[in-house]
Amino acid sequence: MSINFVPNNIPERTIERLSEYRRTLLNELARGVTHLYSHNLANIHGITAVQVRRDLMLIGFSSDTKRGYDARVLVEFIGNILDGNEVMNVAVIGIGHIGHAVTQHFTGKRSKLKITMAFDVDPQKVGQKIAGVPVYHIDEFVDRARENRVKIALLTLPTRVAAAMVESIIQAGIKGVLNFTSTPLNFPEGIYVEDYDIITLLEKVTYFVKECEAVQK
Amino acid sequence: MSINFVPNNIPERTIERLSEYRRTLLNELARGVTHLYSHNLANIHGITAVQVRRDLMLIGFSSDTKRGYDARVLVEFIGNILDGNEVMNVAVIGIGHIGHAVTQHFTGKRSKLKITMAFDVDPQKVGQKIAGVPVYHIDEFVDRARENRVKIALLTLPTRVAAAMVESIIQAGIKGVLNFTSTPLNFPEGIYVEDYDIITLLEKVTYFVKECEAVQK
Repeated sequence: MSINFVPNNIPERTIERLSEYRRTLLNELARGVTHLYSHNLANIHGITAVQVRRDLMLIGFSSDTKRGYDARVLVEFIGNILDGNEVMNVAVIGIGHIGHAVTQHFTGKRSKLKITMAFDVDPQKVGQKIAGVPVYHIDEFVDRARENRVKIALLTLPTRVAAAMVESIIQAGIKGVLNFTSTPLNFPEGIYVEDYDIITLLEKVTYFVKECEAVQK
Repeated sequence: MSINFVPNNIPERTIERLSEYRRTLLNELARGVTHLYSHNLANIHGITAVQVRRDLMLIGFSSDTKRGYDARVLVEFIGNILDGNEVMNVAVIGIGHIGHAVTQHFTGKRSKLKITMAFDVDPQKVGQKIAGVPVYHIDEFVDRARENRVKIALLTLPTRVAAAMVESIIQAGIKGVLNFTSTPLNFPEGIYVEDYDIITLLEKVTYFVKECEAVQK
């Protein structure tokens, strides 16, 4: 995971956890739970209550009453931190299995984050829609992304062609990239990149499983 | 990301970076590069050379010569840390778009890590093979995983049915889970879980993009 800038004091891991707390709070609200204590959130996420309270303190949220946090208020509070006021447009580059899954999975889940277009080279896919998202030819990427003011790109191309997209992404004015390919990409400062590599995480899981077995022997 | 145990002193992030270094070294070897300096690895991964040297020091690797690290030796050294001696069997649970993508993407990439079976409920998929990996009905999971000594499960099911698999995963003797679903799962101590949630990372990217824009205004 590479960061080119850290614009304020909230740690990356706290940002990740805030997103996870919100997801949990939305799930709880959906099943009728209106209040949660820090230890409820902590249990669900496998962390300590102290960590939950510290995260919420960092964003200035402190309405822990006798009934616990008001889930609806906290969801809104986290939304103010994570989402901002304007809708952020997102483009998916590469409609293979992963691109398809991400587009379907994400569409409609968050009001302030919108996958507005997708790109591919396959004539079978260009001109189609996936979960309501139009698929254009990748040659149109720079123009369409600029016109649509797309700020975030999800790179779900085959690894071998990913590096060739870097220049277009810069030209299109993209500010954030979620890189699903197995190759680190060099973007200039001012473009935030998050690598999301399956092999790395699978190897990490393997390592901890192996170490645990060694301890038990 | 939740950890139930940390069996030694190598930090999680170092483990992730070791996996990334190896991937880069293998790529470089494939295109004929035999030696790299710490600053070469650092540049490719967007980190400092000090960080690279610190990571390699942590695993006891210190053969930085005038020509830099010998890529082949370092690959082997990292392999000894990450892989262990035995092949680790992996099962994919849920053959939707993501399960399919992961199976195809991973198969054959690492010699010590092997996706040996996949599971689904769809009669169209059960009995088929994906990248040579047989797909069985999910009802057979516990028996087949035990018999095949599967140690790691990739959870690529729909989020709403993921929680129902927890008990089977414990019964099957699985020791590590890579959880692609959007729900935190409660496993007992001794099972290592890594959450791999797309929405969380996308929201994180969004946050940093938004903050960067606010700074520039």
